[in-house]
Amino acid sequence: MTDKKTVEQWGTFEIALRGTTEGNPFTDSVIEGIFVNEREEKKVPGFYDGENIYRVRFMPSFQGEYDFCITGNCVEKITGSFTAVKPSAENHGPVHVSDQVHFSYADGTYYYPVGTTCYAWAHQTQELQTQTLESLKNSCFNKLRFCVFPKHYRYNYQEPPLYPYEGEPNDFGEINWYNYKAMNSPKDTKWDFSRFNPEYFRHFEKCIEKLMKLGIEADIILMHNYDRWGFSVMPAWADELYYRYVTARFSAYRNVWWSQANEFDLVPDKTVEDWERLGKLLMKEDPYGHLRSIHNCRVYYDNSQCWVTHCSLQRIDIYKTVEETEVQRQTWGKPVVVDEMCYEGDICMDWGNIPAWELVRRCWEITLRGGYTGHSEVFENETGTFWWSQGGLLRGISEPRLRFLRQILEETPAHGLRFLPWKDSAVEGGGVCGVADNAEINPSYRIYYFGWYCPRRKSFQFPEDETWQAQIIDTWNMTIMQAGKYTGKFWLELPARQYMAVRLVRVGHEKEKVF
Amino acid sequence: MTDKKTVEQWGTFEIALRGTTEGNPFTDSVIEGIFVNEREEKKVPGFYDGENIYRVRFMPSFQGEYDFCITGNCVEKITGSFTAVKPSAENHGPVHVSDQVHFSYADGTYYYPVGTTCYAWAHQTQELQTQTLESLKNSCFNKLRFCVFPKHYRYNYQEPPLYPYEGEPNDFGEINWYNYKAMNSPKDTKWDFSRFNPEYFRHFEKCIEKLMKLGIEADIILMHNYDRWGFSVMPAWADELYYRYVTARFSAYRNVWWSQANEFDLVPDKTVEDWERLGKLLMKEDPYGHLRSIHNCRVYYDNSQCWVTHCSLQRIDIYKTVEETEVQRQTWGKPVVVDEMCYEGDICMDWGNIPAWELVRRCWEITLRGGYTGHSEVFENETGTFWWSQGGLLRGISEPRLRFLRQILEETPAHGLRFLPWKDSAVEGGGVCGVADNAEINPSYRIYYFGWYCPRRKSFQFPEDETWQAQIIDTWNMTIMQAGKYTGKFWLELPARQYMAVRLVRVGHEKEKVF
Repeated sequence: MTDKKTVEQWGTFEIALRGTTEGNPFTDSVIEGIFVNEREEKKVPGFYDGENIYRVRFMPSFQGEYDFCITGNCVEKITGSFTAVKPSAENHGPVHVSDQVHFSYADGTYYYPVGTTCYAWAHQTQELQTQTLESLKNSCFNKLRFCVFPKHYRYNYQEPPLYPYEGEPNDFGEINWYNYKAMNSPKDTKWDFSRFNPEYFRHFEKCIEKLMKLGIEADIILMHNYDRWGFSVMPAWADELYYRYVTARFSAYRNVWWSQANEFDLVPDKTVEDWERLGKLLMKEDPYGHLRSIHNCRVYYDNSQCWVTHCSLQRIDIYKTVEETEVQRQTWGKPVVVDEMCYEGDICMDWGNIPAWELVRRCWEITLRGGYTGHSEVFENETGTFWWSQGGLLRGISEPRLRFLRQILEETPAHGLRFLPWKDSAVEGGGVCGVADNAEINPSYRIYYFGWYCPRRKSFQFPEDETWQAQIIDTWNMTIMQAGKYTGKFWLELPARQYMAVRLVRVGHEKEKVF
Repeated sequence: MTDKKTVEQWGTFEIALRGTTEGNPFTDSVIEGIFVNEREEKKVPGFYDGENIYRVRFMPSFQGEYDFCITGNCVEKITGSFTAVKPSAENHGPVHVSDQVHFSYADGTYYYPVGTTCYAWAHQTQELQTQTLESLKNSCFNKLRFCVFPKHYRYNYQEPPLYPYEGEPNDFGEINWYNYKAMNSPKDTKWDFSRFNPEYFRHFEKCIEKLMKLGIEADIILMHNYDRWGFSVMPAWADELYYRYVTARFSAYRNVWWSQANEFDLVPDKTVEDWERLGKLLMKEDPYGHLRSIHNCRVYYDNSQCWVTHCSLQRIDIYKTVEETEVQRQTWGKPVVVDEMCYEGDICMDWGNIPAWELVRRCWEITLRGGYTGHSEVFENETGTFWWSQGGLLRGISEPRLRFLRQILEETPAHGLRFLPWKDSAVEGGGVCGVADNAEINPSYRIYYFGWYCPRRKSFQFPEDETWQAQIIDTWNMTIMQAGKYTGKFWLELPARQYMAVRLVRVGHEKEKVF
């Protein structure tokens, strides 16, 4: 009956059953499984996968023997058991919020997101998808934002290889940038929103699985408005059916994160009440409580809402982009991930043409303010594909610098960093100060970042009995220079260049080991 | 009786008379002159210049014959006449606000301020003052901010060669950066605030005159808190005596501007009521209505007050520094001069260590938003002098770029620029748009600036019957490249570098001549 008798803890156990196809199996059939071991009992929904096949997937949160029972109005009841075994070295379980404003895997390993975005990579040619995965494999990125529904927006107007519903697209004739807005989100479509195309979702979950194998979290965007097919303006019952279908299908993949929307405030018709209703539906339907967020465009969502596990932000000002991360963290009391702060690139749009040094500067600002960073790229090139939309090749020069930043972050002798206000930071004359996010009042691990500023020297003033070991970090050239030990008040010589940082660790303190 | 019989229009006519020295001539003596020609009649105060000499200065606003009469309780009444003759080529008269948010000289010539700051240059050695003037002569700067009172602040702790009052300074022992705050603005001083030192002010007005000869406006700062002598915390009667003395002495110099304070909000004890009282005193005492402003540190002054002729701003945010210039212009309805937006340099303080490209970027932002820019420099160097404080040599690389910006501004076929909101600016995807500040609804002269952004191309969409001539401006490398003529909607290829601008002029329009 079961496809396999053992599965890793946090792996995906699946039961496939033949069942009835009377009526509409997507709406009329009910199937669920109950999974029990000595430490948990979980009821999980199943789903119809076409061709008479129903599936129930389960992700065991513990090791040991599990018994299960599958029931429903479309299949015959079955029972069985399997063993959840020790996870492999790369399997740390799903990521959750921990220490209130940070993330950990289920096994307790700290998770420091350094994300990127390829919105429509799952809807490209197989060759291009393979190239995207290869690029990701060689990168520092450990989270990918991408859309379930196909995307209609600048540089990406082709029809997707598959559609999520039965039916067919409207004929819009030739499509280009100049008329895309007029045809946005049509409601007079030929889709049957009550009948999914299982092949579409089978393909999509293969994408999730491939990312899982690379150790990359799949930050799945459920709704977006770059849509000529009408998927962003479905009736409420269809939205809910869709949310139930994807949670039933995808929740047993440990690397799933739910992003309700890309740019919720641009999605036509949907109100805050809709997002709240659907957010709570996600909470209810996903048995594992995967991370949930909603990404903004021009205004922030009220991220204090109960269903929001963390903030997924886009900068809302062109000039002051990420320099309030610590305020947001304080306001919402949740992890802050700035997924979009303008992408590295050279296109004409001002969300996609900052140079790498400005992107990296923003990422350092976010990190030292206790938040987490996101990346993408939009470089014009001969292939006509753009990392941010289709994936493919990474062409920018920020990725190695973000890898370096991630390494620095991983060296923190605490779960992550928090922002220390300038008046408390012991540095003279300005500089962003991030410190080990633990309970220390006088944090013994500090990183100072000077961004655009080019000081030739900086002074620090600590109590006279404190000795600090100093390093000078060139965040652009990715070098760390030992700069000696100092006591009390001291000056550090700096190279009077942009993008420099200083790391100080108190000598004699247990955290000295990080050097 | 008169020192000379002819003087240029907007030149300085002076009468010197011997008079009584009974009592305290600075407080007990009253002297004033009435000057009359067919187009004006002005009553102006005189002042005591020491050694029995009283002086009355007058700046004729018109050409032709002037009669005058000097009276007072300290001199014998005299009458006389002189001729105000045609001004020399470099003499355009005093600068005033014109077209509400811009500046003109009295002869109607537009004045585009590109200012710099050497706070304490007037209190340095003669050699250093000469070097400062030579640097200014070879620069693009046409306005200089500097202080009447000596300055006590980082890098400038020496005693001034002269003092403004009779008496002597307190003995503070050795002075350095670490104890300057504690001794700031002492009230227990040995000065007689009722008796000025005329030599001090004679020297200061020589500085004003030397700037005048270089065509540089003297933006005179009356009060500041970088003070160990107590001049910033004098009693109200002493403040008023001082304001009356400097207006009587300096107002007849056409290049005088009054800046009530550097960083008014840091001056101890003074309240908004004090600044209002003193601002209105300036209005009353200066017979010529020279420009009046008050410079802020952490909060803006309410520049809508009647005595404020223009806004002299310091940026109040570290990150979003100057990108609200158009809002400030709209709010206060007056010219906006951002005199301090962080200086070019490499010192440890975050108000003095941005690289030139960031300073120049800020200046372009301000200019395209319809405001005017200010500069200074603080580079560590072997001389121990800093342009921003003592003057001396210019060491940075922003000055030629500001010269270039000033040239661009002077080519505007209107008095200056105004900001066009992005939605009205005809450019796609972002960019600051400054246009000729005239009544045109569809401005025919436009400059677009992309700052940090690196677009490889930009599209512009105008009505189909409009043809525009395009230039691509590299604001950093100071080049202007002809880029052809275009009609309706068109794309311009750009070099995908930072700090690029585009200038468009509508063809067939009378303003086409600027190319």
